[in-house]
Amino acid sequence: MSETLDMVRWTIAELDDWSSRKRARAVNSLSGFKSATLVGTSDVQGVHNLSVVSSVVHLGSSPAQMGMVLRPPGADAHTYKNLKATGQCTFNHIGVHWVAQAHQCSARYPEEVSEFTAVGLTPCGVEGAWKAPAVEESRVRMGLTLAEDIILPNACHFMVLDVRWVEVDATAVAQDGYVDLGAAGSATVSGLDGYHSTTHLGRFSYAKPDRPVEILHDVLTGWDDV
Amino acid sequence: MSETLDMVRWTIAELDDWSSRKRARAVNSLSGFKSATLVGTSDVQGVHNLSVVSSVVHLGSSPAQMGMVLRPPGADAHTYKNLKATGQCTFNHIGVHWVAQAHQCSARYPEEVSEFTAVGLTPCGVEGAWKAPAVEESRVRMGLTLAEDIILPNACHFMVLDVRWVEVDATAVAQDGYVDLGAAGSATVSGLDGYHSTTHLGRFSYAKPDRPVEILHDVLTGWDDV
Repeated sequence: MSETLDMVRWTIAELDDWSSRKRARAVNSLSGFKSATLVGTSDVQGVHNLSVVSSVVHLGSSPAQMGMVLRPPGADAHTYKNLKATGQCTFNHIGVHWVAQAHQCSARYPEEVSEFTAVGLTPCGVEGAWKAPAVEESRVRMGLTLAEDIILPNACHFMVLDVRWVEVDATAVAQDGYVDLGAAGSATVSGLDGYHSTTHLGRFSYAKPDRPVEILHDVLTGWDDV
Repeated sequence: MSETLDMVRWTIAELDDWSSRKRARAVNSLSGFKSATLVGTSDVQGVHNLSVVSSVVHLGSSPAQMGMVLRPPGADAHTYKNLKATGQCTFNHIGVHWVAQAHQCSARYPEEVSEFTAVGLTPCGVEGAWKAPAVEESRVRMGLTLAEDIILPNACHFMVLDVRWVEVDATAVAQDGYVDLGAAGSATVSGLDGYHSTTHLGRFSYAKPDRPVEILHDVLTGWDDV
């Protein structure tokens, strides 16, 4: 381990020598701040499940698609099993005021236990053919259907999902479509177990080579070109 | 568009009726807070490139792997072309104090222009067989090699990358491996153009069904079980 100024350098060989838990905490931190999502599913009997997922990623807006990474499915993989069985799930942003309740959903409850009941969150949005529960307490939530299940080299699954509907805090939506996640109270995650609130630094204009970017301070009024 | 309390609901058909820019701003926001990364590459002539990427996701720690989503490669896809040609890139966390410089890297500079020179950032870490430049100003940076290039249903590419080395602000590293990204000054992105700093809410204990989670306040002292 060598140090330059106050930077520390780790080679992959050094990281591989660490205990697996220490390495997991470090490498999970290194990808940067992550989305903080509760994924809601239902099994075919209608038992609800909620799990904490920090690997949601935007794939595209036309069609509107999201991705998420799920660990290799084992006996406890209720989210994976339910999503494969029903084709549906919900994404619910974890709120800064209820991060402890949300984190408790990562405990290994038995299959027949609903995390909603166990941690005290409220299911909503189940009607007609839509069986995957959303979280009433969440200010940004959406329903998605499974488009593709891709197995990655490390045996994790990359799930490609189509957005079907969205419910979002009306006061957080700018005229130009931008959603102010700070105003909606969404949290962000770092590492395996760190939760954070955010402070808006600014929205920047579309960058062009011949002029410096400008800060757009007035988030909720937004731009004119909607 | 129907409203319940102060939530607004959009069906996918309604979203599809929006202008493509408005829809892109909204759907990019809905995935939650995102990592804020400058990806450094070099072409085979040694010309450096930096691009803003907000789709970096953690894949696993053993082996240490990251993923990132890149748009369908067109003429301007310097990052994709360089990564395929050299097999190397760097990830550099964007710092809260230089988000404007970082965002300026998303302008479409010609292929022969180095974004380092154009925006005033400092390349580092290029030595021997390692050609992909890192960003001196970044307090969390790493070198990665291409493991797999997966084409997604929407024609985007999901790049699977192996971590080879890491350099991180020594004062941000906890004894148990957790890296305090707030202490390292890493920013987070929302939507297409929103940048945010963060405030630590707490680290939570490993969740178990039979007891509530506990907050671990002392981030940099960390846990005992390293």
